[in-house]
Amino acid sequence: MASPKTIALDAMGGDHGPEVVVPGAALSLERQPALSFIFYGDQPRIEAAIARHPALRAKARIVHTDHVIAMHEKPSQALRRGKGSSMWLPLEAVKTGEADAAVSAGNTGALMAIAKLVLRPIAGIERPAIAAIWPTIKSECIVLDVGANIGATAGQLADFSLMGAAMARAVFHIERPSVGLLNVGTEEMKGNEDVKAAHALLKSIDALPLEYKGFVEGDQIGRGTVDVIVVEGFAGNIALKTAEGTAKQISSYLRAAMTSSVLSKIGAFLAQGGFRVLKEKMDPRRVNGGTFLGLNGIAVKSHGGTDAFGFASAVDLAYEMADSGLIARLTADIDVFHHRLSGAAGGSQPQSATGSPLGKA
Amino acid sequence: MASPKTIALDAMGGDHGPEVVVPGAALSLERQPALSFIFYGDQPRIEAAIARHPALRAKARIVHTDHVIAMHEKPSQALRRGKGSSMWLPLEAVKTGEADAAVSAGNTGALMAIAKLVLRPIAGIERPAIAAIWPTIKSECIVLDVGANIGATAGQLADFSLMGAAMARAVFHIERPSVGLLNVGTEEMKGNEDVKAAHALLKSIDALPLEYKGFVEGDQIGRGTVDVIVVEGFAGNIALKTAEGTAKQISSYLRAAMTSSVLSKIGAFLAQGGFRVLKEKMDPRRVNGGTFLGLNGIAVKSHGGTDAFGFASAVDLAYEMADSGLIARLTADIDVFHHRLSGAAGGSQPQSATGSPLGKA
Repeated sequence: MASPKTIALDAMGGDHGPEVVVPGAALSLERQPALSFIFYGDQPRIEAAIARHPALRAKARIVHTDHVIAMHEKPSQALRRGKGSSMWLPLEAVKTGEADAAVSAGNTGALMAIAKLVLRPIAGIERPAIAAIWPTIKSECIVLDVGANIGATAGQLADFSLMGAAMARAVFHIERPSVGLLNVGTEEMKGNEDVKAAHALLKSIDALPLEYKGFVEGDQIGRGTVDVIVVEGFAGNIALKTAEGTAKQISSYLRAAMTSSVLSKIGAFLAQGGFRVLKEKMDPRRVNGGTFLGLNGIAVKSHGGTDAFGFASAVDLAYEMADSGLIARLTADIDVFHHRLSGAAGGSQPQSATGSPLGKA
Repeated sequence: MASPKTIALDAMGGDHGPEVVVPGAALSLERQPALSFIFYGDQPRIEAAIARHPALRAKARIVHTDHVIAMHEKPSQALRRGKGSSMWLPLEAVKTGEADAAVSAGNTGALMAIAKLVLRPIAGIERPAIAAIWPTIKSECIVLDVGANIGATAGQLADFSLMGAAMARAVFHIERPSVGLLNVGTEEMKGNEDVKAAHALLKSIDALPLEYKGFVEGDQIGRGTVDVIVVEGFAGNIALKTAEGTAKQISSYLRAAMTSSVLSKIGAFLAQGGFRVLKEKMDPRRVNGGTFLGLNGIAVKSHGGTDAFGFASAVDLAYEMADSGLIARLTADIDVFHHRLSGAAGGSQPQSATGSPLGKA
């Protein structure tokens, strides 16, 4: 692989702008010399930051714009007045083929709305989703939707399965990723109507490009039971943030426990190599980057408050996805899946699917 | 306080039956000498277990029944054939006033269904909820609904707020508990229609017996931002289990990290006092017990796999709730709230509430 790829970067996004985006890109370039970059934003600030990175300088182009979308702008506002901004232009570059992927650490809602408008959903996909890479005891899994939309029909949940599987193929290099539907129990009778109908749908179609494993519960996410976990965006977002909160809470318990006595302090000092291992395992920067899946192009959202190391993870992710041919494969998979579905609907539609399994006919 | 209270126990519930239920009750009695117990189940097994606890023997009565509800029985089955079982009889005892609260470590769905049928919801409450005590960095909070039902209307979410506040008053001894609605963002425009309408509803009513704090996100649960967190049961159950899974995941990282080198092992040995502090903080047995809120009586569900220490926590919780006069207070609060609501609906109904705010008119 290692084919040359161009990443379009919103240099002004996030809490720090070019001072994080530029060194982040430099770090990613060290790992992946086939990369080149287009930076969009305030030229003098980008120039100043890039001057310290001669290797990056040689592989980068800067497109100046004064126009920046603020962190708290509403998606609807951003759509109306975002054209020409440092967030909009990278997505345009992906659309025209000038770049292979876009990365921004800016306003998530605005980025999602603009990406959807500029890149457009893949034919047959009603709703794009935001996918997160979630660390597990075994390695990592993909969870989607973590907040692009609230609620999802059975058909949309089934589409999410294919979208997540395509991403798992791209970033974990697993040909037939295992997929589970997040639910409040693993028995067939559990869950809401959409989840039950999605389950029936995924069981009813043969030869999916994934291994459907049925329902999984919240405690199975971190156990690494499956490669891809599908859930509608309200519960998915709450799960993601609850896990982040729990991790912080336990870190704080651990700090307090390790300073609770002189002996514990000495022990913690001696065990600092072990604590370093733990810290690395739990470092949220390692898996920084929510991906908008289901669009005709790759757009990755980096965490707004991250540093260069974290931003580089988001760029790495964008590169891997661009390099894997994910979009073409997903477009074909969705097409085949929807054809099978309409075939199945004509023949033996799953009984518990209420209405059209795709929720759009 | 410390008024005499009788707790009715399903001696056969959970993975271990009387061998855990009996010593659990004995432990709780040590802490709270005003307690007495009625055990329901296999008399010889209960007698054998109780023989080792003379203090408990003096405060306990045994009601024999052969009839036990299995862990995997469906709620509908349990309702049809559960009468006279070791799970049903304690709830009957609460209903007749023979006991002040019931505790079971049995099948959750069956217990919920039977409790609802036997004890009946408080007038005005459409749906009972399961409340969990959730450890936070500061102390503890209450989260409901963690899985009694899927989905909730705005009016039901508002009722959950009062139910959670009543429980916080009983177990945390806070007169005006703070309450937050779990959502995917803290801005007013975020969330689904039910959550937005519940928010408008809670803001619109003056003089609630709680302090309504607006939306909270998943990462704020463990931070202890509010005393009570309200969410419908699908997302609430997923949040609870995701947090449990994350805690286990980090424990496993920690174990691996502390055995990653000889120095780490020595350090961990020296710091074992600190690790004990951490283990106690994270011990799920300390806050064992989901409570069914919104019924005319107190029913607590202990974790099925817990030991005597964990079962005792569930008994403690049942005692505290019985001792606090929770049901009478909640019944009055709900009545006042619903009257205010119908007053407000006649006058200035909140604009963003779609349809009837109580979703039942």
